[in-house]
Amino acid sequence: MDLSVLWKLSYGMYAISAMEEQRPTGCIVNTVSQITSNEPIIISVSINKENYTYGVIEKTKRFGISILSEQTPAAVIGTLGYTSGKDTDKFAGIGYRIINGLPLVEANCSGYLLCEVQNVIDCGTHGIVLATVADSCSGVDIKPMTYRYFHDVIKGKAPKNAPTYQAEKTQPTIRYTCKICGYVYEGDIAEEAEDYLCPICSAPKTLFEKSRL
Amino acid sequence: MDLSVLWKLSYGMYAISAMEEQRPTGCIVNTVSQITSNEPIIISVSINKENYTYGVIEKTKRFGISILSEQTPAAVIGTLGYTSGKDTDKFAGIGYRIINGLPLVEANCSGYLLCEVQNVIDCGTHGIVLATVADSCSGVDIKPMTYRYFHDVIKGKAPKNAPTYQAEKTQPTIRYTCKICGYVYEGDIAEEAEDYLCPICSAPKTLFEKSRL
Repeated sequence: MDLSVLWKLSYGMYAISAMEEQRPTGCIVNTVSQITSNEPIIISVSINKENYTYGVIEKTKRFGISILSEQTPAAVIGTLGYTSGKDTDKFAGIGYRIINGLPLVEANCSGYLLCEVQNVIDCGTHGIVLATVADSCSGVDIKPMTYRYFHDVIKGKAPKNAPTYQAEKTQPTIRYTCKICGYVYEGDIAEEAEDYLCPICSAPKTLFEKSRL
Repeated sequence: MDLSVLWKLSYGMYAISAMEEQRPTGCIVNTVSQITSNEPIIISVSINKENYTYGVIEKTKRFGISILSEQTPAAVIGTLGYTSGKDTDKFAGIGYRIINGLPLVEANCSGYLLCEVQNVIDCGTHGIVLATVADSCSGVDIKPMTYRYFHDVIKGKAPKNAPTYQAEKTQPTIRYTCKICGYVYEGDIAEEAEDYLCPICSAPKTLFEKSRL
């Protein structure tokens, strides 16, 4: 069985958010799908049950979806995707607004959905949350971010100036990979200041290792 | 509520196929997601319950997923997506191979998954099929087709030669839209032969209407 075939499936990038009493929390997922086209519209989202946000959604039965765009800052994905809401006030450093009691990411999102849980299907490590779309808001007119874009452009190839993609191919250089999130730093990381942090997950530069080219 | 926000969700393009006794059948879907990462790997696919293929999958508990690539011929999508397996032998005009008793689309697919149904969740018009991945095969090294690519490039903008996309923007011309599948024909359709058929859904040219520019 060639499991790399699973990498050929296409997804978007979404911030799922919920409110635990007065404290907003959230996580990053790639699996949001519209299931029915007649109202009430049902969507599904698969969430790792170990995510702190999953527990809050199970309890409060409500969540928001911020549809990330290609211009959503990497730090939003880093904070919501690579830290835990258990220890961290994830929204402390992220611009957000509250609509109908749910926190939504402000910066450059393509749109927003406000959802009410109907059912949760337990699939072992993950739960599929089935929810109705109670409301929606439009966002910026920028292409929604795909999971492929996140991997190819943001995580792998866009350190200081994104359009270097082609140049990299012809002029291989030194690369360092973040052991926490997989972000690729192009160039010699030793030249960065001692307090350099991974732009995705905020890991210190000691957690980067030299990549083979 | 602004339902156009739902168009910002990202999907792939897949041919779902099943075998009814000795007769292969299939349909096109955009909602395949990997749910769990530990084996047995569970995937979900949402299928309209009116699709003939849905009934066959419910009965046989097995199906194949052909992950369409950007080079999958439009006719594959037209035949599997815009005709019914009830009346049509959909695979009659499509190159396919049979692996483990399941038909898979041959032309330019990015990969294949062979799945065994574990559970079906009834969501009204649609059912979410949860299945384990029993086997997989790799395909061509061409970008998987996204639903956005299908809409923007194949369905909307790629009549005779695909890379006209930018030119169209600056030189608007006459357009005709297929009333069945939404395919856009660039130019004066009257100049086509009488037996011209929509390359996506095979509708005759009488079913095209002039688009406003």
